[in-house]
Amino acid sequence: MPKRYSLPDAEALDRSDPLKSRRDLFALPDGIIYLDGNSLGALPRSVRARVDEVVASQWGEGLIRSWNTHDWIDLPARVGDRIGRLIGAKPREVVVADSTSVNLYKVLSVALGQRLYCRKVVTERGNFPTDTYIIASVARQFGLDVLEVDAADIPAALDGEVAALVLTEVNYRTGARHDMASLTAAAQRAGAFAIWDLAHSAGAFPVDLTAAGADFAVGCGYKYLNGGPGAPAFVYAAHRHHEGLRQPLSGWLGHARPFAFADSYEPAPGIDAMRVGTPPILSMSALDAALDAFEGVDLGQLKGKADQLTDIFIRELASLAPELELLTPADPDRRGSQVSFRFPEAYAVVQAMIAKGIIGDFREPDILRFGFAPLYLRHVEVWKAASVLGRIMQSRDWDRPQFKARAKVV
Amino acid sequence: MPKRYSLPDAEALDRSDPLKSRRDLFALPDGIIYLDGNSLGALPRSVRARVDEVVASQWGEGLIRSWNTHDWIDLPARVGDRIGRLIGAKPREVVVADSTSVNLYKVLSVALGQRLYCRKVVTERGNFPTDTYIIASVARQFGLDVLEVDAADIPAALDGEVAALVLTEVNYRTGARHDMASLTAAAQRAGAFAIWDLAHSAGAFPVDLTAAGADFAVGCGYKYLNGGPGAPAFVYAAHRHHEGLRQPLSGWLGHARPFAFADSYEPAPGIDAMRVGTPPILSMSALDAALDAFEGVDLGQLKGKADQLTDIFIRELASLAPELELLTPADPDRRGSQVSFRFPEAYAVVQAMIAKGIIGDFREPDILRFGFAPLYLRHVEVWKAASVLGRIMQSRDWDRPQFKARAKVV
Repeated sequence: MPKRYSLPDAEALDRSDPLKSRRDLFALPDGIIYLDGNSLGALPRSVRARVDEVVASQWGEGLIRSWNTHDWIDLPARVGDRIGRLIGAKPREVVVADSTSVNLYKVLSVALGQRLYCRKVVTERGNFPTDTYIIASVARQFGLDVLEVDAADIPAALDGEVAALVLTEVNYRTGARHDMASLTAAAQRAGAFAIWDLAHSAGAFPVDLTAAGADFAVGCGYKYLNGGPGAPAFVYAAHRHHEGLRQPLSGWLGHARPFAFADSYEPAPGIDAMRVGTPPILSMSALDAALDAFEGVDLGQLKGKADQLTDIFIRELASLAPELELLTPADPDRRGSQVSFRFPEAYAVVQAMIAKGIIGDFREPDILRFGFAPLYLRHVEVWKAASVLGRIMQSRDWDRPQFKARAKVV
Repeated sequence: MPKRYSLPDAEALDRSDPLKSRRDLFALPDGIIYLDGNSLGALPRSVRARVDEVVASQWGEGLIRSWNTHDWIDLPARVGDRIGRLIGAKPREVVVADSTSVNLYKVLSVALGQRLYCRKVVTERGNFPTDTYIIASVARQFGLDVLEVDAADIPAALDGEVAALVLTEVNYRTGARHDMASLTAAAQRAGAFAIWDLAHSAGAFPVDLTAAGADFAVGCGYKYLNGGPGAPAFVYAAHRHHEGLRQPLSGWLGHARPFAFADSYEPAPGIDAMRVGTPPILSMSALDAALDAFEGVDLGQLKGKADQLTDIFIRELASLAPELELLTPADPDRRGSQVSFRFPEAYAVVQAMIAKGIIGDFREPDILRFGFAPLYLRHVEVWKAASVLGRIMQSRDWDRPQFKARAKVV
């Protein structure tokens, strides 16, 4: 592997990319290099027609009948199984429902309710805030403490007092990736449940929940799965936990027989007990159509390409902009499909890049974050983005007032 | 008012209908009379173009930038305020989020958490199951009992031990409507919160939460509001409760400063504390576009038309099919925009009607349920539907095997 990449190197990698034809499945705007597919995935071309068909025909013509004729009622399970294939779940271990936050609330409620003799929940310091907020909320309800530790200290924190270890596999700021199998095993040896947030994993590289022996997982539909803004999330529970799957959001569509309108709640068998209310069919259909882009993809190739894309960006910037402090692990097996740097004026730098058509993310307080969706990004784009960022840093192009004014959503 | 209506009577009512032009705002299939807008509202024509624009342009072209440029971040509040005008809420008392079930969980958690010295929650026997399931779940968490009483016995049940009275304003089976103002006052006199589910109210007739002094409310986006299958729901909290609005689903978008990614949860000021995760923008945009059909509508006229439509159906069937037992109150101020009958073979009758292009609902165990969306239904359609149902009953056309086979969703 070269220390630096040239444009012809990147072009050659594109030519030999086994996933190169996938790019055509996405509608990306001209003049944009999109390094933010980990915040909101790009639009798969199949979505537009599918959503229009659901609106005009399934809803408009079919009306209420489409719950049966288009089997809307099982859409959450069907889409769940499609995601399940990307994360190493078995059929009917995943269902699509609600948001990641709500799903984490459910699985934590199930898990902590079975560990009332424990004293604490362990998570990583710097886990995504919605995870830490929900963990704190459920832990408070069950009278447990939350212990937030640095990644390196997690194994030592797993003693017999731990009810659950709750981790996001890929850290949203640094891009560092946990070893799911070893931490799951360590948690379970301590008698704790292992609960994984796959927000920055699903669709970026192969995940194998079954091989890792994970207990529960949640994840996001709108990042690498490209399900659209605010796409519904997913929730996983290993088959061995399906017996006791009683969560407090006991909505009617999680009932064993929703249309019996029974007086008392009886959870549906299996993962369907994680369903709550009527699912947003339009948004869920968009996610379903988006998953077409993953059909037939070799997830090993996806990981290989993610490693290559991130390697280009890391190596180029190490030379072009050494003042950017790399936060992401150099070992590709220790990182997600993401590269993050620390720089005091990170916000302005990200804005200066956007002004040149390269979209990345700023994260508080001083982080530049770039996601590399291997399904649709080209090596050449990543090489060019590194060049532009290098020039912005060398010229201090970011040092202008218009790049420092904060937007509502950053 | 005549004892019976003729077709010319119905035609005359259509001609003088002040809302008649609204029908053109909806895309209804040919050959169908749709009396199920209380299960899934019909498709407003404006939705299709709007959703396509959100998919192709806002998502596809704008990508992550649309959180700012299209102000997705405040979409839940904007749509909430539009619904607020239909239910007598003040600005920023309503937000769109999650499902009705999840929203009821939130408001009940807020309410019961402030009434820990109480012993019970009161609801109506026969309330919609998801309400009773969620009430039971939250009550269990707070160590309270649930008392289910018949509608007539509610006032007597409101003693000093009641934390909250939780009612669906219009009963999903019978169509009976509670007196919101008097029951709210009775609950509050007893020291209890009044919590209303407006699933079968919002968009069907004027609701005035402010005048009634209601404490909290939830409701559905996909019934009379026509937001599409599984459209996001809404949640209301009176301004006076906004200080203590701490609910357990402490997701990041309910945080006071979500993009600060702060370590600990601090609820957003006001109703935004009811937000949880990232909202489904496609489904929420459909709901937003659907609400265009209500712009400029006089809600008093909406109620007047609902009364007229239901009156036609009730009076005609009283003559044509006396074996159908009317479950809905004869007094229009005591009913929603709905008419229900009891008949032992209700399921088969509903199927026989569908075979003739008239779509109503079956509800267990023996109920025929018809919703009358006053925004798009014509008086003539209701008159014809009554005639067809009358003929089906007179000829026992429902008594065939193909009408008795149950579908997955009934």
